[in-house]
Amino acid sequence: MSKKRVLTGVTTTGIPHLGNYVGAIRPAIAASKAPATESFLFLADYHGIIKCHDPAMIHESTQAVAATWLACGLDPERTTFYRQSDIPEIMELNWILTCITAKGLMNRAHAYKAAVQDNLDKGQEDQDHGVEMGLYSYPILMTADILMFQANEVPVGRDQIQHVEMARDIAGRFNHRFQELFTLPEVKIDENVELLVGLDGRKMSKSYGNTIPLFEGEKKLQKSVNKIVTNLKEPGEPKGTDESPLFEIYKAFSTPQETAAFAQALAEGLAWGEAKKMLGAKINAELAEPRERFNELTANPAQIEAILQAGAQKARQEARLLLDAVRDAVGVRALK
Amino acid sequence: MSKKRVLTGVTTTGIPHLGNYVGAIRPAIAASKAPATESFLFLADYHGIIKCHDPAMIHESTQAVAATWLACGLDPERTTFYRQSDIPEIMELNWILTCITAKGLMNRAHAYKAAVQDNLDKGQEDQDHGVEMGLYSYPILMTADILMFQANEVPVGRDQIQHVEMARDIAGRFNHRFQELFTLPEVKIDENVELLVGLDGRKMSKSYGNTIPLFEGEKKLQKSVNKIVTNLKEPGEPKGTDESPLFEIYKAFSTPQETAAFAQALAEGLAWGEAKKMLGAKINAELAEPRERFNELTANPAQIEAILQAGAQKARQEARLLLDAVRDAVGVRALK
Repeated sequence: MSKKRVLTGVTTTGIPHLGNYVGAIRPAIAASKAPATESFLFLADYHGIIKCHDPAMIHESTQAVAATWLACGLDPERTTFYRQSDIPEIMELNWILTCITAKGLMNRAHAYKAAVQDNLDKGQEDQDHGVEMGLYSYPILMTADILMFQANEVPVGRDQIQHVEMARDIAGRFNHRFQELFTLPEVKIDENVELLVGLDGRKMSKSYGNTIPLFEGEKKLQKSVNKIVTNLKEPGEPKGTDESPLFEIYKAFSTPQETAAFAQALAEGLAWGEAKKMLGAKINAELAEPRERFNELTANPAQIEAILQAGAQKARQEARLLLDAVRDAVGVRALK
Repeated sequence: MSKKRVLTGVTTTGIPHLGNYVGAIRPAIAASKAPATESFLFLADYHGIIKCHDPAMIHESTQAVAATWLACGLDPERTTFYRQSDIPEIMELNWILTCITAKGLMNRAHAYKAAVQDNLDKGQEDQDHGVEMGLYSYPILMTADILMFQANEVPVGRDQIQHVEMARDIAGRFNHRFQELFTLPEVKIDENVELLVGLDGRKMSKSYGNTIPLFEGEKKLQKSVNKIVTNLKEPGEPKGTDESPLFEIYKAFSTPQETAAFAQALAEGLAWGEAKKMLGAKINAELAEPRERFNELTANPAQIEAILQAGAQKARQEARLLLDAVRDAVGVRALK
């Protein structure tokens, strides 16, 4: 237990794109290889169903996310890799924590407040119009996710800091009221998260419709790259690195030397069409091998399932011990 | 499945007294013997921890409630008798239902509204002051309790009607949005619930401090009975049946003939002291045998535990099948 435990969850409501790869998957897998780190990574399907009531999408996304992480090099021997819904202990802990969480804490959660604000803006009389209890109480489930495995560190974006603070708050409350059982997690803000830009120069995001799919074939990848917005400068005209998102995407897949050479070539009049070919080739060079593994895995979902089941077994052994202690602490005990 | 399923939960936050016996335990056990009925009875310890943060009391109460029902004649072969916390499927269903429950529904729950009103009455600025999420969201857990076993009927007092209506509402919402999986429970209002009066003539209730313990020894029972409030009428003076709670309690343990004879004796001047001895003997005649069984059971809690485990096994088999169908309906599925 001297290793630092890092826990990350991935919601299963979409298919990973190039922005997810650069911003989350690649750095997390690199970080999981640090010797002093013990990584937990899970498919948050019970968070997925909060917003997504399309069963086919939940299922498809679960498979795609799992296959993507494995294809990108996640080592299930090193990282405890599981699907949230395979760990019923989390759901039980969720209820126990629900019983000690102040309602006021949930009232202050950003996602809920945003939904209320949205209703107010629209002139809705009922500020809770359209709000479901999953949205309202999911910070407790996130707390259970984190506390169940005594995570020391939860790497999150700025918008998620509050959730880790809530987990600390609830853990502290339990420790104080019943027994010192939970590790207080530290938030780790990834200041250097590489936010990849999309086809149009804004942040690459499903909601902007500006993404490049991660694991399409080489030809389709080139077609996507060809859609990146450029200006009308002719071949031979000098081009700045800020004249198309192309440069930033190239940079995300290249060494500093390669990036400098690319900037130089643009300045010397490299045609946009050529530049796109170079970028397509660059991305392809990094993704060709993972893509092959991804295709192998998705052709054989039972293989992914077996990996998830092994991960769940590993995770549940530990979850069981802690849950038993938690149950005992609140008085839920066998008679003897 | 042609039998009518009746489900009842008992919160494990106290020790059953004579009022619980007459008002709930005795009639429920009688009802469970009806041939067209399939009974489910559970110890609601995960409801217990909402309000009671005293682990020793939760544990003690769980044992006392289980031993009481068994001692009073609950037949675990006929009735599926289990402890809520032994059925993790309920906790998982609880979360799935949380994701489809409108927050507005919880805002309208009586217990929560009472807590808010209490804050308003006290001039609290924060209407949610002191309210924990367990209190706020337990109608969803009650829904999971009910739907998990496809209960047709839930016998409740008038104050609980809303909970069964909420369970119907949430079940209907799931059936409509995903798949017709849940039976819509019917509320069954027990109009004829015998509300036993306590020592002082008010409803017998722990909160009034006017209870008669259920399974104390014969002598202690007589001592408790001797505390029943009477007036100062001397032996020989005629006494009305409404002059002491004594008569109502006698009635709860007697045939109509016996009750009429007792009223007659009072009218003819039976001394209060004599009347109390007769009542003590009457109660003791009914409780002596159950008390012996209760003492045997509590001397051997492992025996109770074994019965609860057998009940849990029976309950979980069924819960598992339904939960698997529910998971599949929302898209939480194995990959294959």
